[in-house]
Amino acid sequence: MQLIRLGPVGQEKPAVRIDATTYVDVSDLVDDFDERFFARGGPSLLADAVADRVASGGAATLKGQRVGAPIARPHQIVCIGLNYSDHAAETGQAIPDEPIVFNKAPNTLVGPNDTVYIPRGSTKPDWEVELGVVIGKRCRYLADEHEAADAIAGYVLVNDVSEREFQLERGGQWVKGKSAETFNPCGPYLVTPDEVGDVNNLDMWLDVNGVRRQTGSTATMLFGVTHLVHYLSQFMVLEPGDLINTGTPPGVGMGFTPPIWLQPGDVMELGIDNLGTQRQVVATAP
Amino acid sequence: MQLIRLGPVGQEKPAVRIDATTYVDVSDLVDDFDERFFARGGPSLLADAVADRVASGGAATLKGQRVGAPIARPHQIVCIGLNYSDHAAETGQAIPDEPIVFNKAPNTLVGPNDTVYIPRGSTKPDWEVELGVVIGKRCRYLADEHEAADAIAGYVLVNDVSEREFQLERGGQWVKGKSAETFNPCGPYLVTPDEVGDVNNLDMWLDVNGVRRQTGSTATMLFGVTHLVHYLSQFMVLEPGDLINTGTPPGVGMGFTPPIWLQPGDVMELGIDNLGTQRQVVATAP
Repeated sequence: MQLIRLGPVGQEKPAVRIDATTYVDVSDLVDDFDERFFARGGPSLLADAVADRVASGGAATLKGQRVGAPIARPHQIVCIGLNYSDHAAETGQAIPDEPIVFNKAPNTLVGPNDTVYIPRGSTKPDWEVELGVVIGKRCRYLADEHEAADAIAGYVLVNDVSEREFQLERGGQWVKGKSAETFNPCGPYLVTPDEVGDVNNLDMWLDVNGVRRQTGSTATMLFGVTHLVHYLSQFMVLEPGDLINTGTPPGVGMGFTPPIWLQPGDVMELGIDNLGTQRQVVATAP
Repeated sequence: MQLIRLGPVGQEKPAVRIDATTYVDVSDLVDDFDERFFARGGPSLLADAVADRVASGGAATLKGQRVGAPIARPHQIVCIGLNYSDHAAETGQAIPDEPIVFNKAPNTLVGPNDTVYIPRGSTKPDWEVELGVVIGKRCRYLADEHEAADAIAGYVLVNDVSEREFQLERGGQWVKGKSAETFNPCGPYLVTPDEVGDVNNLDMWLDVNGVRRQTGSTATMLFGVTHLVHYLSQFMVLEPGDLINTGTPPGVGMGFTPPIWLQPGDVMELGIDNLGTQRQVVATAP
């Protein structure tokens, strides 16, 4: 199943994507794709109703609809740093022995094609295509990776936008360069595990102004998704609907010599196999 | 005004504390002390109704009521590191040039007298008495400290419980040692700015098993509360109801030689002038 949220900013309604051109509205069945929805069972709650509606001609056309993030603002956005060995190398940092964890403000979440704002005072805005994991159950001291797999509601495409001066040169903790408004485009849709294919072998890419900058595959992740979910549950309680950004492959702007920073008017396009694509125009924060 | 939340874990009802022994229930007026409440105006919404209820004998007795955190789970808990010069010194770290910012998981929030659990695998659990600031308005690129002052809904007492090995020896970002369940006792009540006294001159203290371990005053904060709120709003959007832990004075366990770590059965008691006191029993995570 593919969850999607459609409508104006802040008024998105939950829906199920049927194919590239149609969807079924489910806003009469669930309030939103939020913590309560995932805690109650998530996508499986909708399967019968959606099948009935498709069968009875209830699918509507996607064309012309704004697409929001496919989940409501989560309890937390947890991020994994340097989780691709070749990305660690390009940033000049050592390969970590265990996952590097940081957080970003949950209100950074925006739709996949919304404008990305360069924060006031920013000189080093950068991009990061990432596989996002959405949590389906409360996770507390999971016993093993099997339990972790059972706790994953689905996968999303994320651009973990970053401000490198704020992140690395302004006092030590990365959250400062990860939390500006619009810094977490997400979507266009959430894909349940049964439909994503081999999550450990998905190609991913990001272009800026039509030039390919990032090329990678989840096959080169240092710590895979079930490892990460199990690991995180030893340090914190993950709530249903939480989002985990699992790290980025090589090709971020800070890895070039000289570095390449985003400029107003730039266009970022990115994608991951089976998770759709995003397109953001970059602008100066109003 | 003093906001308080009373009732069993997860079922707390919003109330206004009148004095040391009585309160007025306001759960028929507002759902909770959450983002929507603060966005709509917060404590000022309740003033007339509470005065009427007290005048008509509507106050009830606090005795026997469990006290929860005085705010609902916030959108984010932002923390400031090394914000007291003498605490920076005891941890062996340099005084920061600008605020060090990190986050902890919002679901760490618990009541002021709830059990604090030592996480599984923990060897270095530690305490931190802190002044908490609760945000009253959406804060985005605040112009100055006057605007920051207007955006503060009130103040709370916080114990920013920390696991030092997880925080400092397990891969770089502090959130890993700050986010375990029960790691953010908060309350007993939120005090509005007009009733807190001089927020830049409040004494604070923390005892473990009756032995005074932390003694400090907000007078020695490196960056004061309006500085912090203004500063944070340049890097992220603060939402109504967000909680900022503003840093701890000297006397944490890691500052002793040899260090002193929390043990099961320990009792932490802490307080800040005008913000009440907390008492937590420490236990092994079940």
